[in-house]
Amino acid sequence: MLIDPEVHKGFHHILRAVVVPRPIAWVSSMAADGRVNLAPFSFFNAVCYRPALLAVSVAKYLPDGRIKDTYANIQDRGEFVVNLVTESLAAQMVQSAAEYETGVNEFDQIGLTEAQCESVAPPRVAESPVAMECVLDQMVKLGEGRTECGLMLGRIECLHIEDHLIDGYHVDLAALRAVGRLGGREYCVADVLFSMTPPSLDQKLEGAS
Amino acid sequence: MLIDPEVHKGFHHILRAVVVPRPIAWVSSMAADGRVNLAPFSFFNAVCYRPALLAVSVAKYLPDGRIKDTYANIQDRGEFVVNLVTESLAAQMVQSAAEYETGVNEFDQIGLTEAQCESVAPPRVAESPVAMECVLDQMVKLGEGRTECGLMLGRIECLHIEDHLIDGYHVDLAALRAVGRLGGREYCVADVLFSMTPPSLDQKLEGAS
Repeated sequence: MLIDPEVHKGFHHILRAVVVPRPIAWVSSMAADGRVNLAPFSFFNAVCYRPALLAVSVAKYLPDGRIKDTYANIQDRGEFVVNLVTESLAAQMVQSAAEYETGVNEFDQIGLTEAQCESVAPPRVAESPVAMECVLDQMVKLGEGRTECGLMLGRIECLHIEDHLIDGYHVDLAALRAVGRLGGREYCVADVLFSMTPPSLDQKLEGAS
Repeated sequence: MLIDPEVHKGFHHILRAVVVPRPIAWVSSMAADGRVNLAPFSFFNAVCYRPALLAVSVAKYLPDGRIKDTYANIQDRGEFVVNLVTESLAAQMVQSAAEYETGVNEFDQIGLTEAQCESVAPPRVAESPVAMECVLDQMVKLGEGRTECGLMLGRIECLHIEDHLIDGYHVDLAALRAVGRLGGREYCVADVLFSMTPPSLDQKLEGAS
């Protein structure tokens, strides 16, 4: 089947179901007046190693036309924190996706603990085993009108990780149990299913000849 | 543990292991002279619904200083195709990650079939059940020097999906078995592990009070 995104009804459901599995940025941010916000985003990934950059796409508007807290906060302060969602935090992450009134602190509502960051003002989620403190490098405006998004490119200033998960630069993926986003209301856990090493070029060219 | 990306040895290994699971863009592209290239990228995601935009971060340089085929091809033609990697295609995807000589056609080397696209010149992977034909909307330059990347923002012109995988806008994720990228040489399959619906705001505020 051939689908035109401009005319196919519910295309966004299809897009969310085929670009999978998506990592989840659980973003904590702070308004100019100090109010704290926490919300999950799955149009998210790392995009550069050096400098270490993350990209999070944040819709500008709520359905009622107000500007989303996360968007406004990142614009105002130029800072945010990406907290990792693990299996044990999944239910709280989903709760934080609901649209609270502007200024409601999701940490309080959901029963999470604010931990002070090293180099940015917003707090990180103390319960999350990995958090990345980011300074906004640039925002790329995407789309127009009601569907406008800001692609927030954040430079990682520092990364928090629980000691038991890391040895040198090896991270224990089996212990991490990161949650990934699929389509609909569906999620996966990043279990290692297989491990593959590319054959050397020589082997491959021989094999293919 | 607190890690500074600028000084921690092997930070890129850590970044790849904590931003997980990542979707994989298996990108087919075409040089100005018509030569075809295919390579996988996992610094990839959807970033906007309307217009439907994908973002793929492509390193500009190979370790030997030459410009990567995918980077050059997208710059030259402003077109690329994102093919979905499913479990049955994983071994061929990994093979296509090796650095062939410029101009080597990975489709031929790996035993894949080129299928003609509707609106762009590069072919799609006939064996892949989902392919998105993209026109370059803009490229955002990230980093400097040897670690420079181009964040390729592609507008989806059309999406191919095998009929048995879709019903209206519902995609059969269990049948799709998309492959995700983890750290190291490790991969996962996007199996649905759980499904969660946010409680209504009223319920949540009551529950939290």
